[in-house]
Amino acid sequence: MGWEERKRAALERLRVHLAQGRVDPDILSLLDAINSLPFAYTTSSCSGRIQLYEARAPGEKFDMVSLGKWHSPVEPDEILSRMRGANLWLALLPPIIHAFTCSLEASTFLLKIMREAGFKRACIMNLSRPFIEARGTERLEVPLRLEGRDIVYPEGIRLIVGTANRMLRRAKLRISKLEVMLRDEASRGLDNLCR
Amino acid sequence: MGWEERKRAALERLRVHLAQGRVDPDILSLLDAINSLPFAYTTSSCSGRIQLYEARAPGEKFDMVSLGKWHSPVEPDEILSRMRGANLWLALLPPIIHAFTCSLEASTFLLKIMREAGFKRACIMNLSRPFIEARGTERLEVPLRLEGRDIVYPEGIRLIVGTANRMLRRAKLRISKLEVMLRDEASRGLDNLCR
Repeated sequence: MGWEERKRAALERLRVHLAQGRVDPDILSLLDAINSLPFAYTTSSCSGRIQLYEARAPGEKFDMVSLGKWHSPVEPDEILSRMRGANLWLALLPPIIHAFTCSLEASTFLLKIMREAGFKRACIMNLSRPFIEARGTERLEVPLRLEGRDIVYPEGIRLIVGTANRMLRRAKLRISKLEVMLRDEASRGLDNLCR
Repeated sequence: MGWEERKRAALERLRVHLAQGRVDPDILSLLDAINSLPFAYTTSSCSGRIQLYEARAPGEKFDMVSLGKWHSPVEPDEILSRMRGANLWLALLPPIIHAFTCSLEASTFLLKIMREAGFKRACIMNLSRPFIEARGTERLEVPLRLEGRDIVYPEGIRLIVGTANRMLRRAKLRISKLEVMLRDEASRGLDNLCR
């Protein structure tokens, strides 16, 4: 499959996921900005979220049970009401943006804009079919309960959720900034970056 | 400066930092394995660490005061005895490996080995002077005190430190695994990956 065909298929997949309500609404406008560029298209991306989950250790995906996911600020009582299980974690997961580009030149161009928008660690995951990942640095990974014992004072959970909400808002601002910068670039009329 | 010259200068810098005791001892042997490859050399890297620090929010480097750093498992009492300040965080920071390579082909080769060793998100940060970053996924970012109020029960701190120590040990195992894989590759006699 050539570049154009792969991009068409990816946009069609996005439309289906949208219709199924499977796309994080806070990232839709950014995805549209990237997909409007002639030299890029997005795959699975996320605008950042707060997540409550049960697991022995963070990062053990197979062992993990999600108890709640919020793409916008959450009330502490919402967290408190869902605390079930012997090992509980509250995470703030940063935005993550995935995009294929048509050439390494296009990757370099997109990386530069992503870094200027504050995604300092944006990088290339694959060279043969150029693929970019940009990940925010906002991150919390806090145990609320371990081995059946509460770790955090109830009042502490309110303070943690307040911090997580502030960090999530900051992450969303960076997403908006990136979108503005990309639309601005696009409006200038871009050179052909697909070789 | 050409590739060979840059590599020589980097190794000389490493020797100076070593003499000054500024290099994390747990990563030295891995750095040596990478630097023994004809197509790569390392820059600032870390084998992973536990860190206690004061800051309003994590990631605000300019505002941060480090209260303790440990590259190997730490005793909970050591953490408890250093808790000073109104906003305190305990972090487990994953290993991070930085390496320049002589060509994109060499980058691809090194990335493949890093991913097989478990550094799934290893990626290329720069194309013109190929530069790789591999970062572990083990991560904790836990507030112990916010706005002057303790967040975590004293017993909870013991459980958190136990978890952090286990995750740190796992990170170090992955570093050893990568080293073994690289030395094994090197012993096979490598093709010229510098074009």
